[in-house]
Amino acid sequence: MTAIEKLVKELECLKTTKYGYDFLLTWMKSDDEILSTLKVADILRKMREENVSCRIFDSGLAVSLFRDNSTRTRFSFASAANLLGLTVQDLDEGKSQIAHGETVRETANMISFLAEVIGIRDDMFLGAGHTYMKEVADSLDFGYEEKVLPRRPSVINLQCDVDHPTQSMADLLHLQHHFGSLEALRGKTVAMTWAYSPSYGKPLSVPQGIIGLMTRFGMNVRLAHPEGYNLIPDVLGVAKKNAAKSGGSFELTHSMNDAFSAADIVYPKSWAPYAVMGRRTELLRAKDHEGLKALERECLANNAKFKDWECTEAKMKLTKKGKALYMHCLPADISDVSCKEGEVSANVFEKYRIDTYKEAGFKPYIIAAMMLLGQFNEPSEVLMNLVKKASPRVRQ
Amino acid sequence: MTAIEKLVKELECLKTTKYGYDFLLTWMKSDDEILSTLKVADILRKMREENVSCRIFDSGLAVSLFRDNSTRTRFSFASAANLLGLTVQDLDEGKSQIAHGETVRETANMISFLAEVIGIRDDMFLGAGHTYMKEVADSLDFGYEEKVLPRRPSVINLQCDVDHPTQSMADLLHLQHHFGSLEALRGKTVAMTWAYSPSYGKPLSVPQGIIGLMTRFGMNVRLAHPEGYNLIPDVLGVAKKNAAKSGGSFELTHSMNDAFSAADIVYPKSWAPYAVMGRRTELLRAKDHEGLKALERECLANNAKFKDWECTEAKMKLTKKGKALYMHCLPADISDVSCKEGEVSANVFEKYRIDTYKEAGFKPYIIAAMMLLGQFNEPSEVLMNLVKKASPRVRQ
Amino acid sequence: MTAIEKLVKELECLKTTKYGYDFLLTWMKSDDEILSTLKVADILRKMREENVSCRIFDSGLAVSLFRDNSTRTRFSFASAANLLGLTVQDLDEGKSQIAHGETVRETANMISFLAEVIGIRDDMFLGAGHTYMKEVADSLDFGYEEKVLPRRPSVINLQCDVDHPTQSMADLLHLQHHFGSLEALRGKTVAMTWAYSPSYGKPLSVPQGIIGLMTRFGMNVRLAHPEGYNLIPDVLGVAKKNAAKSGGSFELTHSMNDAFSAADIVYPKSWAPYAVMGRRTELLRAKDHEGLKALERECLANNAKFKDWECTEAKMKLTKKGKALYMHCLPADISDVSCKEGEVSANVFEKYRIDTYKEAGFKPYIIAAMMLLGQFNEPSEVLMNLVKKASPRVRQ
Repeated sequence: MTAIEKLVKELECLKTTKYGYDFLLTWMKSDDEILSTLKVADILRKMREENVSCRIFDSGLAVSLFRDNSTRTRFSFASAANLLGLTVQDLDEGKSQIAHGETVRETANMISFLAEVIGIRDDMFLGAGHTYMKEVADSLDFGYEEKVLPRRPSVINLQCDVDHPTQSMADLLHLQHHFGSLEALRGKTVAMTWAYSPSYGKPLSVPQGIIGLMTRFGMNVRLAHPEGYNLIPDVLGVAKKNAAKSGGSFELTHSMNDAFSAADIVYPKSWAPYAVMGRRTELLRAKDHEGLKALERECLANNAKFKDWECTEAKMKLTKKGKALYMHCLPADISDVSCKEGEVSANVFEKYRIDTYKEAGFKPYIIAAMMLLGQFNEPSEVLMNLVKKASPRVRQ
Repeated sequence: MTAIEKLVKELECLKTTKYGYDFLLTWMKSDDEILSTLKVADILRKMREENVSCRIFDSGLAVSLFRDNSTRTRFSFASAANLLGLTVQDLDEGKSQIAHGETVRETANMISFLAEVIGIRDDMFLGAGHTYMKEVADSLDFGYEEKVLPRRPSVINLQCDVDHPTQSMADLLHLQHHFGSLEALRGKTVAMTWAYSPSYGKPLSVPQGIIGLMTRFGMNVRLAHPEGYNLIPDVLGVAKKNAAKSGGSFELTHSMNDAFSAADIVYPKSWAPYAVMGRRTELLRAKDHEGLKALERECLANNAKFKDWECTEAKMKLTKKGKALYMHCLPADISDVSCKEGEVSANVFEKYRIDTYKEAGFKPYIIAAMMLLGQFNEPSEVLMNLVKKASPRVRQ
Repeated sequence: MTAIEKLVKELECLKTTKYGYDFLLTWMKSDDEILSTLKVADILRKMREENVSCRIFDSGLAVSLFRDNSTRTRFSFASAANLLGLTVQDLDEGKSQIAHGETVRETANMISFLAEVIGIRDDMFLGAGHTYMKEVADSLDFGYEEKVLPRRPSVINLQCDVDHPTQSMADLLHLQHHFGSLEALRGKTVAMTWAYSPSYGKPLSVPQGIIGLMTRFGMNVRLAHPEGYNLIPDVLGVAKKNAAKSGGSFELTHSMNDAFSAADIVYPKSWAPYAVMGRRTELLRAKDHEGLKALERECLANNAKFKDWECTEAKMKLTKKGKALYMHCLPADISDVSCKEGEVSANVFEKYRIDTYKEAGFKPYIIAAMMLLGQFNEPSEVLMNLVKKASPRVRQ
């Protein structure tokens, strides 16, 4: 039995029959479903490395809808689709004839006649992104039930206002590889901390995604931010519940130093306060440009009070043996590189640059795993067939 | 013999050897060519449903050129290309180095070295779209004859100033499925009527496409619009000729109620008067923004006189047993949903929502059929080979 | 042995083991590497003509980054990728979340996790394009060495400030076919001359690419331009050295007539003077719109002094037997067609229109050859396998 076959066998033991079509929030998924996503990602990665074709689909569309800019996730989604044999078709709302007042139900069905997956990024408006994705999913249910659609395409959250599951799952897979196993993460301390940035309005979905996911594996999760830089309260509740159940812990501090103290993993990253994102959403909706500018000025002034929330070598020394793993979703605001003062000092980032690149490299496979698990009830069978067939990806 | 094989056998009996490469106007096609297009669409749909790969092309480009916004047709074209194994390459004239004064002949050849299909939407300028498509087709003839191009790509009209054949053919296939057969359409009454919309400048291609096509199947086709909202006179001539030949009828009325009276099918949809489209074309060409605004004001004011041209429950009661099939190319201007007052009342639209979605769902297969028939002289052989091979679309 | 197999055998005799991943400048490639690129292009073209699938890749991305407009090269790149089985993913820097100050190293790695090729056009800034491509290549080396990337994608220059190798190589392949062989080019005279155009700021990469490449095959290469319309001095050095080595010649003249005199091939094309491109680069960087306008006025006025640098029938009569082959990278500025007065008269262009189209038609295959040779050390083996397999491109 090859290493890949061994992984497929392990996958077989996980319950995925209720995985569902969509991947919207990690906390909507059972532990087995999370584990199977990681496992499938690993299998696909290994298959590609060993030049085994992962092409399940001979044809089919993977629709992408980016309501905010993206490079990493856009390329990861394209890579994942391509790996499985799907073709990306971008829904560019600017070039589309989406009538004023056209319902989500209609658009969702119109783009899905031959689609297998719809990936959506919608992270600008607090209270809107996740809601929109659920509405798309409901519309697809409707279309499928009414026989408008021959298959039910999967909706994959490529970042919403609440969670960023393709990021947090790639991060988790990175940790699993870095520390050797998920079991090895038990008892480890991860510090998800705010960091200074000379920009404002960064989404909350990364820190929320991290505390909502990492609390499930027996880790001690520390959330740290200056007073006022709160996340969505509900997600804190999720994190607390997860920690209690998994035997880990979840705590909140307003000191970056405390968070770093003896931590195994640090994730310093800027975000805008929950309340600010709420006000910003209202101003964006009202297209109040003056209001937005005023809010930006106010926030940048407030941010500036916390310039010492920078991940420096001195702060890294506080971590476990001074050698915590530094993580970031990229791009990081690197002091003296991308900005004068930022989230992380150049020397710390340089030391961990390769680690962050590897972290990012798991995302295409995580997305491909979500696509595969969302569409197949017997993923281990599907994968074993591909492995047995062993059609080469590159005909060398 | 399976159901699909039976359909392929039926296709074999239709004469398609003179189909030609392109699909520009339905009235440039013989009855057998129209029937074969419907048949191939049905075959491809069934093949996909039964997980049989429709992949004829191992590589090849399907070029798309959209000179106007599109969601439905864009996704239908992408789906059709993907289904057959082609990859869409969009010609974005904004990002292209198309020199001022570069000839159509040159551009058409430059994008076609490895292309199999070119899909074009060009519906903004009256007198221009169809002419442009013919010029592209002539240029490809030239390139193919001169051995610049190894194959002659097919030009497919994705909506021009004259016709919208992918729409009207999908509509016809919908009717065939809804009423059981094309024969069942004989003697049925279809009301293609103008409807009120708070917008102006909508193309004439849908009503023209409908009256130009539906008159070929022995139906009684009623065109209805307020005085002045005329279509291109030539197309009326086509409709009359078709009706005479097919044993149906074609009549014009200026009363929506008369058109609906005892109709089996109603298609209420807004459009701009022929004469207005002509003036608009001149203003667009002259880039006369003031003139365009003035024309818009004038037209909206004129439209507003006909707000009672709305497809309401009361009007639907006038139709055959009050149960005519409502059709629309979507998106519809739905009163109280997409606008205050529009083409159709919310309750009528809601009742037929699923029907309109299904209607739209035929378009990808119609386009794929046009691609296939434009490129192969023996379509039944090509399809039978695929059916016999029975390579799975999804490797489950 | 078929004709294709014969070509593959010939390829086998050429040394390509040190081809390297990238194709940046023709003068970074050995003679055998140039010859193998032409050979592979011919093989792929023939395979496609004979309906043999060239699909080496079952999945994989071909990333394109166009920092300037493009039609021909964009479609050629897309066609080449598609022919080999790769899917184009465009890096649209406008829609990307590329942070201010994000390093090239980071972006290059983020887009390359599942990529096989990166094609780049970057020709606006003198001193920048080639430098950028080298930086991308170095970043990919870094990522591959550090195991961030599973493969080292190839960087292909789709036009930089220094060279335009996909153009010059396609031009060379055109000449090879036109004159029967590369040997037949020995002793032929090619006139690469400036020509008048009512526009300014055209890149230098085409004339530089031509003199840098054609001097390697024993041709007499004449560069002609009005005083002041110099190319990058380094490239003149390359041309001189090549000519000396190949037994051809390289000379500079300031008379179009002298250049045309008894020439076998003429390539009249406008460009901006080296010094102007330098000033323009500074103004573009400074976003000095007034300065740019002033520079444009100055240059157009200067251009206007040389309106007699037009390729007319009278000038063509000066060439060898009055029958030199006219070449152009297209689109040409054709007098009375694309502009009042331009690079070439309408009657001359018309006479050679088909030749120029055929010239352009080699580009997709040249790019595909660069992709293949950049990724495989044993290209003849890879190709022979495909030829033996003889999987049909179109399943007819």
